[in-house]
Amino acid sequence: GSTELAFTEDVAARFRAYGWNVININGQCVKQIRAAISLAKVTVGKPTIIIGKTTIGYGSPNKAGTSDIHGAPLGEDELAATHVALGFDKDARFVVPDDVRAFVNKTIEAKKAAAAEWDAKFAEFKAKLTPAQAALLEKPVVPANLLEELLKVVPEKATASRASSGVMMQKIAELVPQFWGGSADLAPSNKTNLKGLGDFGPENWLGRNIHYGVRELGMGFITNGIALSNTIPFSATFMVFSDYMKPAIRLAALMKLHQIYVFTHDSFQVGEDGPTHEPVEQLAMFRSIPGVTVLRPAESHEVAAAWATAMQIEGPVILCLTRQNLANLPDDVVKNKMDVAKGAYVVSSDDNFDLILIGSGSELECCTGAAEILRQQGKKVRVISMPSWELFEKQSDEYKKSVLPCCCKKRISVEGGSTFGWTRYIGDEGLAIGLDHFGDSAPAGFLADLYGFTAAKVAEKALAYLK
Amino acid sequence: GSTELAFTEDVAARFRAYGWNVININGQCVKQIRAAISLAKVTVGKPTIIIGKTTIGYGSPNKAGTSDIHGAPLGEDELAATHVALGFDKDARFVVPDDVRAFVNKTIEAKKAAAAEWDAKFAEFKAKLTPAQAALLEKPVVPANLLEELLKVVPEKATASRASSGVMMQKIAELVPQFWGGSADLAPSNKTNLKGLGDFGPENWLGRNIHYGVRELGMGFITNGIALSNTIPFSATFMVFSDYMKPAIRLAALMKLHQIYVFTHDSFQVGEDGPTHEPVEQLAMFRSIPGVTVLRPAESHEVAAAWATAMQIEGPVILCLTRQNLANLPDDVVKNKMDVAKGAYVVSSDDNFDLILIGSGSELECCTGAAEILRQQGKKVRVISMPSWELFEKQSDEYKKSVLPCCCKKRISVEGGSTFGWTRYIGDEGLAIGLDHFGDSAPAGFLADLYGFTAAKVAEKALAYLK
Repeated sequence: GSTELAFTEDVAARFRAYGWNVININGQCVKQIRAAISLAKVTVGKPTIIIGKTTIGYGSPNKAGTSDIHGAPLGEDELAATHVALGFDKDARFVVPDDVRAFVNKTIEAKKAAAAEWDAKFAEFKAKLTPAQAALLEKPVVPANLLEELLKVVPEKATASRASSGVMMQKIAELVPQFWGGSADLAPSNKTNLKGLGDFGPENWLGRNIHYGVRELGMGFITNGIALSNTIPFSATFMVFSDYMKPAIRLAALMKLHQIYVFTHDSFQVGEDGPTHEPVEQLAMFRSIPGVTVLRPAESHEVAAAWATAMQIEGPVILCLTRQNLANLPDDVVKNKMDVAKGAYVVSSDDNFDLILIGSGSELECCTGAAEILRQQGKKVRVISMPSWELFEKQSDEYKKSVLPCCCKKRISVEGGSTFGWTRYIGDEGLAIGLDHFGDSAPAGFLADLYGFTAAKVAEKALAYLK
Repeated sequence: GSTELAFTEDVAARFRAYGWNVININGQCVKQIRAAISLAKVTVGKPTIIIGKTTIGYGSPNKAGTSDIHGAPLGEDELAATHVALGFDKDARFVVPDDVRAFVNKTIEAKKAAAAEWDAKFAEFKAKLTPAQAALLEKPVVPANLLEELLKVVPEKATASRASSGVMMQKIAELVPQFWGGSADLAPSNKTNLKGLGDFGPENWLGRNIHYGVRELGMGFITNGIALSNTIPFSATFMVFSDYMKPAIRLAALMKLHQIYVFTHDSFQVGEDGPTHEPVEQLAMFRSIPGVTVLRPAESHEVAAAWATAMQIEGPVILCLTRQNLANLPDDVVKNKMDVAKGAYVVSSDDNFDLILIGSGSELECCTGAAEILRQQGKKVRVISMPSWELFEKQSDEYKKSVLPCCCKKRISVEGGSTFGWTRYIGDEGLAIGLDHFGDSAPAGFLADLYGFTAAKVAEKALAYLK
């Protein structure tokens, strides 16, 4: 039916309230359209919306102004009648009148000339730039030794992964001038503010921090647009609010846009804010989108590696980061074993192990802790850190089997979210420890104990499972 | 920082453009707040927004007006200073002044009296109603024989599940007067228009069709509100646009709201509209939300049963329906085997079968067709229809094993979407046939063949898999 069925707002007044320039025209009049576009082009300092009311199916004698014309073809009879009504031969199909053809050809020539002129001006502009300035116009170059550089600034003590991420972001901003972005009103919580690099806006187009306000979906789509330029943008919010960004993340994946989502407060460990703020099923949502790489690092070194990987691979990358502190892995693991870029790696392994514990993000601590308890009781255990399913899937079968050997069917996954999909790695005999219900409002430590995300509780479940 | 960082719009002008009544007050003045609420209550015919500008942390001498006060406690010193600034004793904590207590007590008494008066008026109103009218004020009663009634109106010929769903909805609207809802500008495509039952709005509050316009998220949240009344609402859109509704669906699940989502055009078979309109990962997204029941019926009888189940169970239910026609199952299957309410059932089974084919929705046809081909080649096959994982999980272990016996490890799932999570049912040795990439724009039949969703292609893959 008519749009009046569902639409009563005054669009012009609404856009004026947003601070836009509004031009109302008859959308059926080509001259008005042309003039309105010219007017918009010379109206500076604000965006313009041109509101051109039209009649759907204009020219069709019997279907104009009806919803019938939206999704279905006109049909032969109505098509003929429409031709007549618009002054064309009733049997003509796909005919371009000579004057239209001449006009289009003339216009193409004019546009070609304008493009050549612009190209010449741009070349002139580029010639005046220093090589460093000129490089900013090209695809960003991410230093090959980025991981090395980031590992130098890893915090020594236990740190929330959102906080170590903030440290990494400062370093990356220094090394990659085309790295910029913003948060949906949560920069201090997401730790995404690029210090000393200014706020983007009419007063400072060089600013590298964008203040999106509480507008997750808008942020998602704007970041998609930015990713189409020669820069690497990031966007940030609490992980649970990524729900509002789903349509934009999907489009980023479809368009293979290289950008980085910084989603913090990545589990029930949000605590007091309660179930509305505690992600449960979001990891599964991310992992189900084709072409998205999800990384959930377990501590500060993994955060460094996750950021290095995120900057160096293609397509959209989601970083899932904690609110709560995470202890660093031992030096030996960091230096000799850690391999975040491969998606999963062996943290520790007993000879002839008969149990595999797989952890991601903050739950790796539960696995390493549980392994200690189990070893004290004579069990032989392997612990795997698995920050990224997608990166692991890209490895050779040989590597995958070296991490997750077929021979050991006793496998436990530990992740502070939905167990959805984990069967893939733990197999028919596996045990998935996760959270298949919504969270609660309580201190994070209390919830961790209640839900069984402690070393002791995981060890207990493992012992029962091995029996 | 200040909201000015991200907010420049004229909120009052924006809401006036929406047709709202706007009242501007000093949000720090209790008398103005009270008067504004009184004014809003007597302003009829449109909603009112009261805009009361406030200072965050009002009264705190050093933190008022700063973002520091949003997420962190004041601290002892600033708390004391704030008490002094507001005229309280600096050491007083959780003290209610006598005049405030007296005012609150007086107000409680007044409210109790007002409530009693309202209850009496309502009882008087109810006493005048017929039993049928009075029943409308209570929780809806869904007829126990709903499935039987719906099976009577099942279309005889091959029908798109969106279309048979439309038939079911007419019948349900007739049998359950508290069943109503609407679509996000897609009623003719979703087949959700309740015929002859009027449009809901200021001119007809009894209308049972809501025209939401292209506002999926708003539709989701409004339907949550409706579900809190004693009615069973539905909402509808193309399945891929459910992405925009994710936050609302999550809240419905968290609040255990009984409502039905009608998501049509549920696979790449959308065809020409292309990848932006073709759901791939949405089924996984739905299934990952705790407390949501997802149903993807395979033909018209299953649609009838899916609707009956959706009306009779608790919590939010998602129906995934096709654009394309689906052949009906044979009478024997419908009468003796079909059991949608159990989530999965055996459609056909050879003695000593050595392969299980599991299909959902439109892909069940691929499985039954492939089974025929395989049987012609001497293979022994079982075919399972699995319209709902969640309902199947609620069955006894005995039932689950009777459908999916442990002894047969050769299992193939066929579903026109992401294979994410199917390992759960097909196990370590299983083969998941699905679509783990975005779709394309082409006629549906062409894509079905390209992606391997035909009986012949599934049979071919099954033979290779059995080798």
